[in-house]
Amino acid sequence: MGKILVLGAGDMGTALSVPLCQNKQEVNLWGTEFDAEVLETMARTGQHIRLGIALPGCVTLFSAAELEKACQNVEVVVLAIASSGIRSIMQRLVPFVKDGMIIVNAAKGLEEDSKTGNMLTMLDVIESELPEALRGKNPMVTVGGPSIAKGVAERVPTEVVFASKDLAAARHCQEVFTTPVYKMKITTDVIGVGLCAALKNVFAVAMGFCDGVEGKTDVRVKMHNLRAALLWEAVVELSKIVQTMGGKEETVLGPAGIGDLYVTALGGRTCLFGKMLGGGMSTEQALEEMKNRHQTVETYPATKAVYKLAQMLSKNGKLNINDSPLLTQVYAVLFEGKDVEAAISDCFAALQ
Amino acid sequence: MGKILVLGAGDMGTALSVPLCQNKQEVNLWGTEFDAEVLETMARTGQHIRLGIALPGCVTLFSAAELEKACQNVEVVVLAIASSGIRSIMQRLVPFVKDGMIIVNAAKGLEEDSKTGNMLTMLDVIESELPEALRGKNPMVTVGGPSIAKGVAERVPTEVVFASKDLAAARHCQEVFTTPVYKMKITTDVIGVGLCAALKNVFAVAMGFCDGVEGKTDVRVKMHNLRAALLWEAVVELSKIVQTMGGKEETVLGPAGIGDLYVTALGGRTCLFGKMLGGGMSTEQALEEMKNRHQTVETYPATKAVYKLAQMLSKNGKLNINDSPLLTQVYAVLFEGKDVEAAISDCFAALQ
Repeated sequence: MGKILVLGAGDMGTALSVPLCQNKQEVNLWGTEFDAEVLETMARTGQHIRLGIALPGCVTLFSAAELEKACQNVEVVVLAIASSGIRSIMQRLVPFVKDGMIIVNAAKGLEEDSKTGNMLTMLDVIESELPEALRGKNPMVTVGGPSIAKGVAERVPTEVVFASKDLAAARHCQEVFTTPVYKMKITTDVIGVGLCAALKNVFAVAMGFCDGVEGKTDVRVKMHNLRAALLWEAVVELSKIVQTMGGKEETVLGPAGIGDLYVTALGGRTCLFGKMLGGGMSTEQALEEMKNRHQTVETYPATKAVYKLAQMLSKNGKLNINDSPLLTQVYAVLFEGKDVEAAISDCFAALQ
Repeated sequence: MGKILVLGAGDMGTALSVPLCQNKQEVNLWGTEFDAEVLETMARTGQHIRLGIALPGCVTLFSAAELEKACQNVEVVVLAIASSGIRSIMQRLVPFVKDGMIIVNAAKGLEEDSKTGNMLTMLDVIESELPEALRGKNPMVTVGGPSIAKGVAERVPTEVVFASKDLAAARHCQEVFTTPVYKMKITTDVIGVGLCAALKNVFAVAMGFCDGVEGKTDVRVKMHNLRAALLWEAVVELSKIVQTMGGKEETVLGPAGIGDLYVTALGGRTCLFGKMLGGGMSTEQALEEMKNRHQTVETYPATKAVYKLAQMLSKNGKLNINDSPLLTQVYAVLFEGKDVEAAISDCFAALQ
């Protein structure tokens, strides 16, 4: 059995090595230039600084310059890189990709095709970077579902979704990854899983709006009823977009959709960003504050991309953007300076 | 247009008078013997003690002894009583129920039929108390969905579900209740809505388990991934039971199911009780502690009732109780003294 190569020594890459090691796999963990400090500390102390865990014993570390070496005897390569970095990492990886090597994507995002204006899922991006000779020869799997890296690293029971058009490859990955505390469902709905992963942040930011409004001094009540209404509206709008794009409703109504939306709404960067806006900061102020905290805000570009996608679908008559009041209002807050409370009010008024 | 009579001057009864008054209805608010102190204070100060709000101007208060008077010129009567009190209140109400009066149930629970052992929803209980002459002549509506009383009282945007076999009656209630911040969807699935309302507490208690385990000193990570897995499992198991009983999947996959489950999991009594158990208290200790805090634990009898229902359905071959590991493990913790962490582990292992 070949090795597993994890690209990205950030939180998720390192966390995924935990179930892999628990499952007796040999793992090569390769860090990008951005991971240099983390890698160096791991090599020296055996600890991952941010995750606060000891590096599992089965892991061999590789620095950015050692990609070729890291690819030797590898049968599964896992991309645990921020979505904005997937294309460039693929370009570096391609020379070492062998026929049959399974590519697993753990990034969650959308990329706009610079030529057509179409929105590409992470698997679309990965596929587009494969040379002609390899297309269709590398099974691809994309990961969705509720899985915070820290929880995976600390062996909190976690159930995710592996989507692939190649069920045998998905099953192989399932064997490689499954432990008593890390399980996955398998589906062929790569579109649905890819879209849910990218779109949930856009909707979850609205839960952060509620956190922010609650924090104001004149607000003396929890907005839980509203959170539930917005969660459900998010599911409805997500489902419409996913189905219009050829994904399945059952994917949205499952761990990849509702599950991931729920976990994102429980806290983390997306909610924090929404909370800042809900508390009265402008988008610029909130982005600046997040930058000061060294937090990437994937929600911000994702909202632009998803709104653009919905507009395009609406223009083509496949979707009515007026049926997506939550998306519309989140966009208005992030990109048009709309007041959060006015946006919430307008969204609620438009609920059907 | 007739008046609206709300039975029960507790949190929910009083809260519901807020949208009714905002909507220019005349409301009679009748309190039971248990509400005597709250009523007396409201009459004297105009404030509801627990809710912390001023009584809306459209409300006329009636004490327990004044039920007949409270029923005059009433076209809609709303039962906002704890589920355990619905039968006895109906027995007191029946002499004053007029042909055509719409009965709205806001209680959430199940009652075991003492003769047949069947589980009755609140509407079943209400109907069984109507005299022969009135059966079928009083449209009945049951309320589901995510609505914490305090939020309704404070005008947090809230979206609920009104279920009735009589759509005209449901629409009439919709007109009477709808405000810009209190909206409702309408459905004919009274079984689904009634069951969701009763069953969600049983599943939401497991989210409280997570709170409790997180509170232990040796646990240094949030169990969000597990929460998401359990939320989804709850939806799956709830859906099976509801469909077996003749309710609709779409009710579970909507505000009455997922929405109410989500809001219950965000906090409140059910979670608090689960947290105590997750933190290591025995069921007896947790019940005692809840009693000291004057908190009713509807989850406790509900779990027994729902587990019994699932066993009965399993025995009849309509459901396989092994497909309900979450329900089984919640029951084991509450009624068989099983350790919460062992229960979580066994539940997760059984997820399909």
